[in-house]
Amino acid sequence: MSKLTDVPKRILIGRALRSDRLGETLLPKRIALPVFASDPLSSVAYAPGEVLLVLSIAGVSAYHFSPWIAVAVVVLMFTVVASYRQNVHAYPSGGGDYEVANTNLGPKAGLTVASALLVDYVLTVAVSISSGVENLGSAIPFVVEHKVLCAIAIILLLTVMNLRGVKESGKLFAIPTYVFVAGVFIMIAWGAYKGIVLDDTMKAPTADFEIRPEHEGLAGFALVFLLLRAFSSGCAALTGVEAISNGVPAFRKPKSRNAATTLALMGGLAVTMFCGIIGLAMATDVKMAEQPAHDLLRDGVPVGDGYVQNPVISQVAAAVFGEHTFFFVLLAAATALVLFLAANTAYNGFPLLGSILAQDRYLPRQLHTRGDRLAFSNGIVLLAGAAMLLVWLYGADSTKLIQLYIVGVFVSFTLSQTGMVRHWNRHLRTERDPARRRRMIRSRAINTFGAFFTGLVLVVVLATKFTHGAWVALLGMVIFYGTMTAIRKHYDRVAEEISAPDEPSDDTVRPSRVHSVVLVSKLHRPTLRALAYAQLMRSDKLEALSVNVDADETKALQTEWERRGINVPLKVLASPYREVTRPVIEYVKNIRRESPRDAVSVIIPEYVVGHWYEHLLHNQSALRLKGRLLFTPGVMVTSVPYQLQSSEAAKKRAKKRQDWNAPGSVRRGPAVERPKEPTNKS
Amino acid sequence: MSKLTDVPKRILIGRALRSDRLGETLLPKRIALPVFASDPLSSVAYAPGEVLLVLSIAGVSAYHFSPWIAVAVVVLMFTVVASYRQNVHAYPSGGGDYEVANTNLGPKAGLTVASALLVDYVLTVAVSISSGVENLGSAIPFVVEHKVLCAIAIILLLTVMNLRGVKESGKLFAIPTYVFVAGVFIMIAWGAYKGIVLDDTMKAPTADFEIRPEHEGLAGFALVFLLLRAFSSGCAALTGVEAISNGVPAFRKPKSRNAATTLALMGGLAVTMFCGIIGLAMATDVKMAEQPAHDLLRDGVPVGDGYVQNPVISQVAAAVFGEHTFFFVLLAAATALVLFLAANTAYNGFPLLGSILAQDRYLPRQLHTRGDRLAFSNGIVLLAGAAMLLVWLYGADSTKLIQLYIVGVFVSFTLSQTGMVRHWNRHLRTERDPARRRRMIRSRAINTFGAFFTGLVLVVVLATKFTHGAWVALLGMVIFYGTMTAIRKHYDRVAEEISAPDEPSDDTVRPSRVHSVVLVSKLHRPTLRALAYAQLMRSDKLEALSVNVDADETKALQTEWERRGINVPLKVLASPYREVTRPVIEYVKNIRRESPRDAVSVIIPEYVVGHWYEHLLHNQSALRLKGRLLFTPGVMVTSVPYQLQSSEAAKKRAKKRQDWNAPGSVRRGPAVERPKEPTNKS
Repeated sequence: MSKLTDVPKRILIGRALRSDRLGETLLPKRIALPVFASDPLSSVAYAPGEVLLVLSIAGVSAYHFSPWIAVAVVVLMFTVVASYRQNVHAYPSGGGDYEVANTNLGPKAGLTVASALLVDYVLTVAVSISSGVENLGSAIPFVVEHKVLCAIAIILLLTVMNLRGVKESGKLFAIPTYVFVAGVFIMIAWGAYKGIVLDDTMKAPTADFEIRPEHEGLAGFALVFLLLRAFSSGCAALTGVEAISNGVPAFRKPKSRNAATTLALMGGLAVTMFCGIIGLAMATDVKMAEQPAHDLLRDGVPVGDGYVQNPVISQVAAAVFGEHTFFFVLLAAATALVLFLAANTAYNGFPLLGSILAQDRYLPRQLHTRGDRLAFSNGIVLLAGAAMLLVWLYGADSTKLIQLYIVGVFVSFTLSQTGMVRHWNRHLRTERDPARRRRMIRSRAINTFGAFFTGLVLVVVLATKFTHGAWVALLGMVIFYGTMTAIRKHYDRVAEEISAPDEPSDDTVRPSRVHSVVLVSKLHRPTLRALAYAQLMRSDKLEALSVNVDADETKALQTEWERRGINVPLKVLASPYREVTRPVIEYVKNIRRESPRDAVSVIIPEYVVGHWYEHLLHNQSALRLKGRLLFTPGVMVTSVPYQLQSSEAAKKRAKKRQDWNAPGSVRRGPAVERPKEPTNKS
Repeated sequence: MSKLTDVPKRILIGRALRSDRLGETLLPKRIALPVFASDPLSSVAYAPGEVLLVLSIAGVSAYHFSPWIAVAVVVLMFTVVASYRQNVHAYPSGGGDYEVANTNLGPKAGLTVASALLVDYVLTVAVSISSGVENLGSAIPFVVEHKVLCAIAIILLLTVMNLRGVKESGKLFAIPTYVFVAGVFIMIAWGAYKGIVLDDTMKAPTADFEIRPEHEGLAGFALVFLLLRAFSSGCAALTGVEAISNGVPAFRKPKSRNAATTLALMGGLAVTMFCGIIGLAMATDVKMAEQPAHDLLRDGVPVGDGYVQNPVISQVAAAVFGEHTFFFVLLAAATALVLFLAANTAYNGFPLLGSILAQDRYLPRQLHTRGDRLAFSNGIVLLAGAAMLLVWLYGADSTKLIQLYIVGVFVSFTLSQTGMVRHWNRHLRTERDPARRRRMIRSRAINTFGAFFTGLVLVVVLATKFTHGAWVALLGMVIFYGTMTAIRKHYDRVAEEISAPDEPSDDTVRPSRVHSVVLVSKLHRPTLRALAYAQLMRSDKLEALSVNVDADETKALQTEWERRGINVPLKVLASPYREVTRPVIEYVKNIRRESPRDAVSVIIPEYVVGHWYEHLLHNQSALRLKGRLLFTPGVMVTSVPYQLQSSEAAKKRAKKRQDWNAPGSVRRGPAVERPKEPTNKS
């Protein structure tokens, strides 16, 4: 790993930062906005298209419902933003939805939110990368012709970058995000100017196409259902809004207020861009179909399998700027880049949530350590593997993947907002200051409406998308939930088993003497060192033990032992079948049987080498013996290492690994203790 | 592993034998013959066909050379058998060709033979399985239609059986081998009776086919070259002859004489069967072509890709017994079974040779232990993997695989016989008894002729087959040779580095005191046990060490420590970034810096659990810390295990694993010490 990716990484990302230097970097709002908003803002690259796509099922005439759907999405966006502004004030620790649900609704709700979020991170990667590839493909046809391959290559690239540890700076996020936002706004403004002032007719590449409706003249319940489905798809624009609530500690002071302002700003930008793109799509007659090969007609004939349906944003850009002009390509590139950045945020969020879950013993304890490399790597590999599987199964088709996406988001929205209502209720019970009570009551009202509205959307999403793929996301959540429950149960059982009894008089016999045994195969430096250390420890009985695997070698060992006059008795065990482990285990058991109050200390000389393949050549018998000895009660096993020259290499590698710096630090801010019970600071 | 294959194994092979019970089983000749001869006898299933196949290049008229080639193979077989009869007398220890070459020609020759044999084992599996599938396919068309799949399935089956450990009995080998030998002899006798006495015309299924010669009217050098190539292919009949020389210890006394007799018997059977099949093939007009699809004509038209060219033995059986009669199917089944048994012998030979090579430090030392399960498994997996790769690459085509096969065999024949010549020369220098000298001179003459003849064949094989695939086998040998040389070099370098100095006054500072440190995270039973053990050891300084990852938990630990009145001082290390490893390492290094004559003993409480997945949930920080500590000089690391209830399961599994019995014991005989220098017993 180390050597393979070193050079490209140095070129790509420069030297890694030490984590103690990162602690001081706090984000001003102008940098925090792009850092946290790449995920929600980038979703305007695919959400408008999804709305049109669903409406097209009822034919092109249904497109006139799209402004109403946009309005619904805007109202929802304002609701969610308003709700999360309450969250960042109430929970400035950055625990996010998991913490809110866990604290206020209990561990089961918390675990549900955690499962939903884990699934969402996977889908963020899959959807953003797929959509990014589609956007890039509108400028570079090669990319869209090898969609799955390109998507997987980009996931692999992100994975390698994140595994290596990335030096992050706000600017890295700021430039593409601001270019993207500026590009979209220029497009909207220029389009409006051309359309309204110049009265120019702009035509999207698909303006002259016709759509063959799957269901002609839909009405009544069926039409409502279709509109609800289109609305659910539009809700994809809301994914990632909650990110800021996890990142409050990364803001400059006053943290909560700055975070809330950034949240509002982000919401404003997102809805403007969303509505602007929908509006331009209407004005330029963009045609999107769910199954373009069959339902999209050019001169009355289906376009066929070879046709590539470009994203709405790129069709609109083609209409406004002209296809393959400089602005068109710039916007496509910026869109793709912002989408890849959005995917990258999941690489940070997944292990961070993992570490919080590990703290609560839902995941292996070692994941707890913040920015621990090994834990981090496992999380990254799991995330990337799952995302690649989805991309591959769904052919990197963002439309299909979005069907899975929105369930998880709204599960956590709803539970988080419900939790907030409980939070205010609890605080209102004790709060007496009338001004504060007023603020709390207002916050509670906002969160209540948020919980109600997002819950309603969740029901709509489930109803309209379940068979279209949402069941896959639910299945993923159930798997995460089940695994984490099982891990927590295991830890609880073990904790009970090992909890120390209050009375020091234990039920088991306490050892009173130590019988030390040094394992010897040959008389070389490692053995001599082990013997010297064993003698230092002054046990009650000390002997050396050798297994007679080869008669000649054993004889040579005994001769050498006497010649050197080593004052430790050497005991030789017979081994008719040339085994090593069994005779030693039997011997140790025998000591314990004969004097049960003796603890046995087995001392093993061990070579320390520098490379894994060298490791295969040494210590294997010792390792296996150690493994078996651990199962024998009343035994302790001591390794006396002897560092071979080649171990220097490994030492250097380990040092380098220690200086590694986990990505995502910019979003997390400096390390703070997570309070057990949050304080109310609003 | 354990559960997966348990039921089919119990059904297939019954309960595994304990190795100490197997030791007593020695083989009488009537059982030894099938045990060792399945490999060489089974090769008559493919060798005759290979001869015809090569001759067909010059057209069907070249078939009349086949008796001459048979004669040459017979002469070669007698030479090799006579030579190896000398080997088994001179080296009754069962070291085989590797030992002979190593002792007499030096380590490089020994290693060359070892590399050749390792490659041969792989090819024995690939060729025997492929040929077995082809033979089975003549009775069951499905098998030959899914040749690669079936071949790989059978390799996997053998692998699983061998990994699990097989209770072997001579009868397992005896029945199919004797059925096969009897079947072939009945076929030859019945064919001769029908042909000569009844004057019946027997016609093979391909009797009416024509062959389009690739090179019409070959003459001169080209013809000689073709005949030599046909002869090389016929030499495939000799593979496996050396097996008996590895298995002398498994024979009843007088071991060497019994082995020599068995060898002669085997040679006699093999040549009779080989010649009989060639004769019958001539009499029944069998037609074989190297590329049947193009060169085999039915009514003047090529038979095309759909045609399956059945092995000679099955075509002859069809002519003699009639196609799909009982005898035909029986013979096909017995042939396939014997070929699979032949492949199985490689599964025994490969790890055995590995253990001998490990003893000489050419392979990782832990492979040394005879019948060690782990070592055995690694060998089996390597062998099976390589064989499957070859089967897959060459489409399970035995004809193509045989091109690779014979090089290795003759490399070891030639070097072994050359070594024997040296052996006799050396003994003749000191031997004075005239009768013995006479015997030795006669033996030397036989081995000299053997060395010369097999060397000649080696040159012929290399010349005629190099471009047809022999280079692959040579490449394999070079890879094995290079790897083993590198391993030996590594061991030699380490041995030099760690060799104990003669003067006890070492250059490094010897520690005079021990500073013990018990790592503590919480106060539970494992910690209490570790503390109790640490106190038993009476080190010069003892303290408990905790890393402050979570302030609340650390405070709780300190309170509990005082409440219990533990008389070991508790030291808490700060860790601003919630790391565990780094602060501990720094602390230990500091102790060493401040008092370099102190050795540091780090005592770690460790959970012992029963399942690998439980292991993922515990000890991970401890394991990583241990790994890092081993690189720190002057430190010893002690694990104090605490057995959780679930560890019982693992204990039982480990016990079961210990009782496992490596396959191949029947062929190896009881364990004997391998003498460093062989004694002459002829």
